[in-house]
Parts: sequence; C-alpha cells; structure tokens
Amino acid sequence: MAEHNPVNVAVVGATGAVGEKIIKILEKKDLPIKELKLLSSERSAGKKVTFNNQELMVEEAQPESFSNIDIALFSAGGSISKQLAPEAVKRGAVVVDNTSAYRMADDVPLVVPEVNEADIKSHNGIIANPNCSTIQMVAVLKPIQEAFGLSRVIVSTYQAVSGAGNHANEELRTQTAQFLNNEEMTAELLPVKGDERHYPIAFNALPQIDVFQENGYTFEEMKMINESKKILHAQDLPVSATCVRLPFFTSHAESVYVDVEKDGLNVEDVWSVLNRADGVTLQDDPATQTYPTPLSATNKEDVFVGRVRKDLDSDKGFHLWVVSDNLIKGAAWNTIQIAERLIANKWL
Amino acid sequence: MAEHNPVNVAVVGATGAVGEKIIKILEKKDLPIKELKLLSSERSAGKKVTFNNQELMVEEAQPESFSNIDIALFSAGGSISKQLAPEAVKRGAVVVDNTSAYRMADDVPLVVPEVNEADIKSHNGIIANPNCSTIQMVAVLKPIQEAFGLSRVIVSTYQAVSGAGNHANEELRTQTAQFLNNEEMTAELLPVKGDERHYPIAFNALPQIDVFQENGYTFEEMKMINESKKILHAQDLPVSATCVRLPFFTSHAESVYVDVEKDGLNVEDVWSVLNRADGVTLQDDPATQTYPTPLSATNKEDVFVGRVRKDLDSDKGFHLWVVSDNLIKGAAWNTIQIAERLIANKWL
Repeated sequence: MAEHNPVNVAVVGATGAVGEKIIKILEKKDLPIKELKLLSSERSAGKKVTFNNQELMVEEAQPESFSNIDIALFSAGGSISKQLAPEAVKRGAVVVDNTSAYRMADDVPLVVPEVNEADIKSHNGIIANPNCSTIQMVAVLKPIQEAFGLSRVIVSTYQAVSGAGNHANEELRTQTAQFLNNEEMTAELLPVKGDERHYPIAFNALPQIDVFQENGYTFEEMKMINESKKILHAQDLPVSATCVRLPFFTSHAESVYVDVEKDGLNVEDVWSVLNRADGVTLQDDPATQTYPTPLSATNKEDVFVGRVRKDLDSDKGFHLWVVSDNLIKGAAWNTIQIAERLIANKWL
Repeated sequence: MAEHNPVNVAVVGATGAVGEKIIKILEKKDLPIKELKLLSSERSAGKKVTFNNQELMVEEAQPESFSNIDIALFSAGGSISKQLAPEAVKRGAVVVDNTSAYRMADDVPLVVPEVNEADIKSHNGIIANPNCSTIQMVAVLKPIQEAFGLSRVIVSTYQAVSGAGNHANEELRTQTAQFLNNEEMTAELLPVKGDERHYPIAFNALPQIDVFQENGYTFEEMKMINESKKILHAQDLPVSATCVRLPFFTSHAESVYVDVEKDGLNVEDVWSVLNRADGVTLQDDPATQTYPTPLSATNKEDVFVGRVRKDLDSDKGFHLWVVSDNLIKGAAWNTIQIAERLIANKWL
C-alpha cells in the first residue's frame, strides 16, 4: 500500500487485550502510517509501549487527542466510544469502533471486509467493527448465502474468556490454580463485570455472556442475531443464538446449523464454496481427524471451518464448526482490515 | 423397598469411573442387597473397595462369577459386555449394561426410567443404559413431547472429560498444570483412546467424541440421534447432534433447540411442564442470573434446565440449556434406577 499517502493513526484502548493485538498486527502489516498515537484511560496513561522498535508513551484520551488524526481505532469500551468517537469525527478523523456503541445505528456501516466491504463507503465518520462471535460466523455464512441462499441459522457458541478482557484471563488462570491446589475458587468478574452474581469459569461452562435482555436472551446473543442480519443485508433471515463462556483463553468456536435455499446439495458443494471464500480456511477431514480447535486457530488471521455435515433429515440443512481467534479476526485484525480498505479505496 | 426379597448384585467394572459411582450410590440407596460382588478386568482384580464399612475384594470377571447373581451392572467397556453379559444372562442374572454394546438391539430395552420405564418389562435378560448425553436430553424432551408434541431436535453438546474415563481426568489435570507452568502439553488419550491423533483438551475444545462414522458424524453424535429416537418411541423424529469435548471434569451441558407441534406456546408453558417432570429441576431466572452449570450440577442426581427461550422467528421453536452429572444420572444413577424398577415391579 506504499502508493498511498501516509496517515496518522490513533489507537484508543492501547493497553487493553484488543489494543495490544492491534499494535502487534500494525507492526506486521504495511499500513502507511506516518504517526501512531497510543491513547488510553487516565489509569493507563504514562505506560510505555514498543512499536517498530520505538518506545511510545500512552497518553490519556481526550477530545484534543484527535487533532491531526486520520484514522482512530477505538477499543476501550462502549462508554469511551460514545464520549470520544464524535469528538474524533468532529476533528476530521474516521473512527473504526470495536465496541457495540454504534453497531446498530442506521448511519453506521457494520463491516467484515470479506463480507460487505462496499458498505464502508457510505460511512459518516464512524465504521463499526462487529462483535467477535458475529464476525467469524458471517465470514462463513456469506459465501454460503451467495452460492445457495440462506433461510435459517441456529448457532451455539463456545467462547473464550479473553472476549471479556485481560482481567478475565487472569481470573481463569487464578481459579485454575486454586482448583488444582484444592482451594476454593474466587469468582469476582465473570460472567459479566458489574453484574450481581459471579460464577467460577475454571472447569465450568457459563451460559451467560453479557447482560440479560427483557426477552430472556443475553445481549451477546442479540448482538449475534441483529449484527448478522445487518452485515448480510438479510433483515428477514431467522437467526438464533445461544452463547456460552468456556474455560479457554483465546479463540471462539461455534456449532452452526444452516438451512440453505437450494435443494440436493452435498458436503462437497459446501466445501467447494468455502474453499474459495476469502479469509476462510477449510480444515475438514474426518478420516485424519482434521478439524479446527481454539488452540489451533489461536494467533492466526483466518476463520477456520470443519465438521461440515449434511443434516440427516433435512435436505437443505448443514452443520458446521467455525473457529477463529477472537482477538485477531474477531477484533484487531478486522479493525485493521477496515482501515486498510478505507485507505486503499480512498474512502477516508 | 424393604418389602422385596433381597438380591445378589454384581458390579462389573467396579474400579472404573462409573463403577466407583455405582458403589457410592448403592451405599446411599435402599436397594435390598443380600450380597454385592465387585468384578473387574484381570488388571484391577485384587484391589479392595469399601462398601457400607465392609472391605470387599475386587475379583476378575469370568463367566462363573455370575452364578447366583440376580442383577449384574456392567460398565467395563463394550467388549467386556459383549463377552460376559450373555454368560451372566445364561446363569439367570438380569444385566443392566452401561456400554453401547446392546443399546440398539431390537430385543434390548433402552431405558431412562422417568421416560420409558414400561419398556423394562419386555427385557430378555439385558436392559441397556443409554449414553450419558442422551439420558439428560430425553429426560427433558419427554415431558415436552407428551405435552406439546415434538417435531425436531437440534443439539450441540458441551461434554466433560470424565465421559472418557478416569484417565481422561488425569490427562486434563496434567495438561492444565503443564500449561500453567509454560510447558508443552502432552496429549496421549483424547479425543479418542486408540485413535490416530491426539489433541490437548486443556484450555481447548475438541469437536470429536468417539470415532468418526462413514457419514461424517462421530459415533457419539449417532448415539444421541439413534438412542433418542428409540427411547422416545419416535423413529421419525428428526434429531441432529454436534458433540464437543471441553476442559471440565464432570457434568455435560447441552444447548438444545426443539420444534414443538403446538402453536402459540410461551416460555411459561414450557416451564410449567418441566416443573412437573420427574427427575428434572428447573433453574431458570434471568433476572437473578439463575441457570445450571456443570459445576452446580455435579454430584446431583437430577437433570437441570435453564435458559428456556422462545425462538425469535419460529412460533414453535424453543431453546433450552440442559445440564446433568454425566457419571450420576448419565450413568451410575440411571443404572441403579433401572435395577430399582426391576425389583419394585417384579420384572426380574
């Protein structure tokens, strides 16, 4: 991308789980960066972070921080985004926001570049990065939708603790050691920081991610449902989700059932479409026990799919197992991809 | 049950994960036992086990071991059952078999007492105990089927390692300690003992339980599908399953989607049916973050259900989260319940 004018980039939430990944990925990619500004809450300001062998000081994010910034990558929580993203836009920056603050706003594109890159163009200063569990699912649903039509989606998730941030990782690590030492486990964070009750995640499964909504679904489940419809441009597509937090650190897995519109397809037809899909890697060979797992997908950029099976009763039904690193494609890498396309398409 | 004639009971596989649980539960229950005989492979013979403050010697299981035995509880693997269950029957015992050896045989009842107790009566010497993941699901499906009709089931499982035996527990424990010490994890057992490849289960998720079948499904998935239809007397019911092994020791969880036949039901209707169901405990209150988890269900006899939600698009669709101790209701307790009903109904 060397032919493009270099840009000034700000990372908001630079010391968080996603911010750290963004900085690491920016080092490996050829985004034409003139200046990189690292921003955080007051609490983390003053920390030093290495970027391309340079030591950068993390500064407190404030409205004036965004003067001269071309692209601001936000992942410091919804309230920071609500407060500061408009300030960044006011100062001429384009914001790629990793929180749920703007995702469902009508005038904000919600983008997975392999799926709906063209939506970026219509931005009004803010582009939203979808929820991690949504991103990896739609990356697989889109090629199926295009090739065969899609009439139903039912997903059950297997989600890593890092989706709840670095403190959730620490909680899993601490509880695991407590359990192995026959000590009582202390639960103070999961399933949801700030919610009334906390349960141990180590050697357990928690069927709650984010807070409950009035309809009995969790916010995580509603995010998957509503965001998928928006990204796939399929408001009438029935999508349902059950989201479960599990005791591993990184990469979400998903058991996805789909009904397609076309009759008479077989597994090879689905394989062939997934094999050609951008950003998707098929790992599916029962004969050699080949399928993706959270550990095998960690630190990789792609979305991995295996266990593709035709439903035994429904001619139009297929089951898939979808795994991806929730901090990379589920967050940092997708954010950077949006920034790349903004620059490459001159949509800033 | 004191009014019944006391019986001689043999436990085959007395030193295994399920056998140990059977002995513990027999101590708590009032099965009228005259003599308890503990049997095992040659390898474990000679071990001593305490039962009701008595020390019993484990003997090697042989055809002659079953002379004078009224009820033989088998959980020592399929090949032992195939070899010795007919010998036990020949000598007048009724076998309750915990393996998959006889489950799908036409002349063998496959029983979850709360669901199809009457099927026990037609036994020809062998009654099969269903797969752990099947038992807890049908315990919840049956009352729904009776009240509202059932036209489709799609399940994704979250299964504990103890389903693969005590050695799998050790493997999870060892790998977990290795991971926390930054050592490489050694994988020698899971997903399937004796299969070609092994993957770490600690901090991971393995979408394979038991060996792959020619149709791309695993044997565990086919067990759930075929056994559920047999137990529910619903050969035409579409059932599909995705079975996943996870890093916790005990209790399986299941994300179950059902289509019912009746229109216009709401969550309260399903709650009310589950509240009245035998062996099922409803734990479902989003307002207080109340739902079952593997840790909360462990060492309990019931099947626990929570997260009951109506599908947002399908009037006849409901989602449920079903959790139960895989070694207790999923194996030992269900086996003992069958023995209890054999005696109480005089069906020996």
